[in-house]
This record gives sequence, C-alpha cells and structure tokens, in this order.
Amino acid sequence: MNDDTATPMPQPGKIMLVGIGPGSHDHMTFRARAAIAEADVVVGYVTYIKLVADLLDGKEVVRKGMTEELDRAVSALAAARLGKKVALISSGDAGVYGMAGPAYEVLFQAGWTPDDAVQVEIVPGASALNACAARVGAPLTHDFCAISLSDLLTPWPTIARRLDAAALADFVIALYNPKSGRRTRQIVEAQRLLLRHRRADTPVAVVKSAYRRRERIEFTTLDQMSDCDIGMLTTVLIGNSNTVLRHGLMVTPRGYANKYDMAEGGGARDGERPGRSLSSGLNGWLETLLADHAAGDSVELLASRHRLPVDYIRATLYEPLPAAAPDAPQVEEA
Amino acid sequence: MNDDTATPMPQPGKIMLVGIGPGSHDHMTFRARAAIAEADVVVGYVTYIKLVADLLDGKEVVRKGMTEELDRAVSALAAARLGKKVALISSGDAGVYGMAGPAYEVLFQAGWTPDDAVQVEIVPGASALNACAARVGAPLTHDFCAISLSDLLTPWPTIARRLDAAALADFVIALYNPKSGRRTRQIVEAQRLLLRHRRADTPVAVVKSAYRRRERIEFTTLDQMSDCDIGMLTTVLIGNSNTVLRHGLMVTPRGYANKYDMAEGGGARDGERPGRSLSSGLNGWLETLLADHAAGDSVELLASRHRLPVDYIRATLYEPLPAAAPDAPQVEEA
Repeated sequence: MNDDTATPMPQPGKIMLVGIGPGSHDHMTFRARAAIAEADVVVGYVTYIKLVADLLDGKEVVRKGMTEELDRAVSALAAARLGKKVALISSGDAGVYGMAGPAYEVLFQAGWTPDDAVQVEIVPGASALNACAARVGAPLTHDFCAISLSDLLTPWPTIARRLDAAALADFVIALYNPKSGRRTRQIVEAQRLLLRHRRADTPVAVVKSAYRRRERIEFTTLDQMSDCDIGMLTTVLIGNSNTVLRHGLMVTPRGYANKYDMAEGGGARDGERPGRSLSSGLNGWLETLLADHAAGDSVELLASRHRLPVDYIRATLYEPLPAAAPDAPQVEEA
Repeated sequence: MNDDTATPMPQPGKIMLVGIGPGSHDHMTFRARAAIAEADVVVGYVTYIKLVADLLDGKEVVRKGMTEELDRAVSALAAARLGKKVALISSGDAGVYGMAGPAYEVLFQAGWTPDDAVQVEIVPGASALNACAARVGAPLTHDFCAISLSDLLTPWPTIARRLDAAALADFVIALYNPKSGRRTRQIVEAQRLLLRHRRADTPVAVVKSAYRRRERIEFTTLDQMSDCDIGMLTTVLIGNSNTVLRHGLMVTPRGYANKYDMAEGGGARDGERPGRSLSSGLNGWLETLLADHAAGDSVELLASRHRLPVDYIRATLYEPLPAAAPDAPQVEEA
C-alpha cells in the first residue's frame, strides 16, 4: 500500500556517455546534442568542455584534467545518485579510448548493476580515426587497427608486440596518443618496429585537430614520420602496402583490381565472377592447397609459401570441417 | 575578357560521400543529414536507401545492389558531371569498408583530380564497430582492429594472416562481413585461427543491426562463436585477454589496475605515479632491459622473455636513439 505521507521517490539519475565526434558541431550526432541538452550536469576534460561551450547554458559543469578519467566517472556517479542526468563527454567516440571503459570500471567497483536506479546510456560518435580518414582521403577502406602509444597504463612490450604484428600482417594503422611533452621516444620506437616489415616510403598522414579550428594535415612517409610535428591532439594514419598518395589524397584500394580490369571497362578478370569469392578466396585457396599437397608439397612448404602457421595448414588439410549447409537465403554481397 | 554571349557556366557538381551511421536518425550527424538534404541525387545500396527513405522527397534516387559499388561511384560521377549534387551514402562511416575508397578509385580512373569542377566531400559517421560497442558495453577501450572476412576482393591467406596476428598480439577484434548465404566457412576458419592464441572462453558479442528495428545482441565465447546466428548485417566483437562479461556488459579494462589500487581508494601503486608512464612503460622497460643485459642476459633470452623480435631487442640495446629534447610544453595526459 502506498503511504501518502512518504517522501516522493527522487527522479532516477542517469549517466550518458557521450561521444561528441571530432569537435565541430556539424559532425556531432543528433543524439549526442540531445543528450547534452537534457543533462543537468556535464563532466569532461577541459578541452572537450570548451568544444561544446555553447551548449552548456544553465548547466552544472565539472571540468577535469587529462589524467583524471576515474575522477570524472566518480563525479558522474555521485551526481547521478542524487537523481541528476549527467553527460560524461568524450571527444570522438565514447567507447574508443574514451570514457565508457573507465565509467564501467568505476560503476562495477561501486557495486552498480544494470538493475540500479542509475541508468547508463552510451552515445556513439565518429572517432578520431574516422574523422582524420575523412580529411585525408580514404585510407581505412581495408582492414585496420588502432594502437595507442601511451604507456601510462600499458606496458611497452604489449604496445611493441601490437606494432610488430600490425606491421607484419599489413594492417592500415591509426596511432592514438602518439606523443606528448614527456613521451617523445615512443613514436621513434614505433617507427623502428614498423620499418622492420614495411617499406620506408609507406604513405603516412599526420592529422592534428581534424575538423577543428587549428586543423593541420601533413603527408609524409614512414621513414620520416617521427620528424613531423606530432602532439597529443594528433592522430597518425599509416597506410598498408597498397596505400597510395595521389593528388594529395591518401587512398587504400579495396581490392577491385584483384577481380576487375579497372582500365578495360571494369569487366571481371579471367576466372573471377562478380558477387562471388575470389579464386584465391577461402574455397579456391583450399582447393589449391589440397591439390598442391596431393602433388607432393609438404605442410611446411605450403605454410612457408602462404606465410601461415604450419599447424594451421595441417589442421586445414587434415581436420576438414563439415561442409556447412547454406543458411536461409540472405542478402548477397560485393 | 568575358564574352557576354557565352553560355553561363553550369553550377559545378559535387559528390558527398555520406556515412549515415548505424541507421537510426538519432545517431546520424548533423552534416550527414544536411548533405542528404542538399543533394539532388542520392545513390546507395537498396538497404541503406530504405534507412533514409523519409529524407528523399523530391530527390532522384539511384538504388544499387550490394555488389555494385563501382557502379554506384560511376553513377555519382556521371550525375555530378551534369552539375548535380550527389549524396553517395554508406551505412556507418563512409571511409570504413564504405564508398569513399571505391569512389576515389573510380574518380582517379576517370582522370579526376582535386582541381576538377566536381568537388568531393567525405562526411564521417559512427562505424558499425562504434555502434555495436556502444550497445554491448565498452569492449573497444583498448587497442583494436577491424578485419573483414569477405574474400570477394581479398585473398584468404591475407585475411588469415591478419586474424593470426591480431589474435597473437591480443587486439580486441571487430569482424565485418563475417558470413553470408554463400560464405559460411570463413567464420569457422577464423575461429580456428583465433583459438590457436586465445582462450576458449574469450568473450564475444554478436551484434545484428545495431540501433535498427531488428537489433539483436547475443553474447557468447570464442569456442561457440561460429554456432551463433550470423549474417551480413552482423558485426562480431571479440574481446582481448582482459575483456570481461559482467552483468550482461562486455568491458575491456583500460589498464587502471596496472597503476592504481582500484579496491583501496584508487591510490597509485608502489613505484607508479599519476600522469606519468608506467614503471613498465618505454623508459622503465629500457632501463630494465639494459640492466638485465649488463647482468649477463643474452639478447635472445631478453627477446624470448618479452616476446619481441631478437633484432628489435638488439637494435634497442645497441642503436640507442638520441634523447629527444622535450618539445614546447604540451597538454599532459592520463
């Protein structure tokens, strides 16, 4: 039974983890702007607070330093516990090196669960890699990775192993937090690791403050990368072995030339069919592998030829998977 | 001299490569919506055209099939050459496996340069990995990579090498195009490659149509991944070795526990300082490396201990870089 004399339940609080995109309002999402508009409290790193200054009239604003992510999350939770709506803002995407992770770490530590009165919403946005890529051409049209060079929370060998693997496997690479006032050698060590596998003339774009007033774009090559003007507001995009710099645009081919004769009207090359896997795709490759092995090529030779682990080649040859029955018809693809 | 009798120059055309985000209007950017609004012609894959159907009144709409990316770009260029403004739309981000790459390939092939009358603008958006991550927690708070399992334009050994490298170096992994009606074995082979380096119970999120009407999220583990309902509208997020699934949320710790005692009030651990590199960061690690080597540990032993290439360890020990002078004061970091 309700007791008419009881204090009314306070309005439940909410934490909105808002990715504001690169920093210009044009490239913010409708939901990001609405989330800030409905917030009672906005919490963020001072630089990001400045980027949304015109949206903050009448709101409580909590400005924090760069090293205070956990503090920001603690402040947000405290305000939400009082029934307030809190926008905890990140530049780019809240989930990519943003506040979503630290916020959940703090929430879990505080005993929060999704059943709590305090609700949590994550508002995605265009991350620095999306924004920087858009400003330089189309560098991310093929497999890519993001690696932060900050060793404030990550041991260097972990970072170094990722640089080595990404270079070897020919990913396009986006370096976040490449350099700061105190961290100046990480970018040089990164360059040294990448050059072990990648050509000195690999195209590199050094992008500072994409879509902001002080945007600055510099194109260079992998062997010159560490000489560029790089700071904490810079993202570095490193091409894969097919990336080209043409007419001042950095473009990674998607691979159409593997299948189509681009210069000759765009018809499919011999042995290739539009809408189907390449002849060197999984099924075609497996056929070749089986045929070469039957013809006498050893597992070790095949592994070396295809630069893949010996035990993967062996498993693929000797532990074939049941041929999966095709699913119900699905959308087809490129 | 101007000739008054000359035909007036037609309005120059424009190609806008628009990333519409995950598909709900809330998560589209202001610029994406404005670009579609100012377009005379909207070109895109039929499914994406449907997602923006209410923005298309009075516009010429060119619907293309999934395999027709180059056709879409050719159509866009043809319309722009007639002086039209063309929005060539992609879901997510136009640069991430989107239309930006194919468009530049077609433009370059046609002799286009940035001085051409036809101008090009890329409008970034939240990609599938950002959207899917926002729906499942905070899986992308540390280094991650995106790998497409489509072998329609990429040879399988290239894809397999990237899966192997990403698993070994402990990246969080987003799989794009994981499976289609015809391509059913790629996800199984991917699982086999990933399990060579990663635990069977590694958390995996299978996200279909994030933020769309038929959104569906399934949490599983790496050894069960290929049994899930996966199709062309699915993105698969695979955690790193630290990722946890807690209270139905997938979270990758950023690494605060490496530096701070999270359970004991959040103070820095012995030997660690807020705002500075970890004791196992680059400089601390180099000191340890030099000391261990001086104490008799061989280069090979050190390489094995830190799981890094022998020649990198040798170069780091014997080819020290000049100590870079700190730059002008910069923003500090976490």
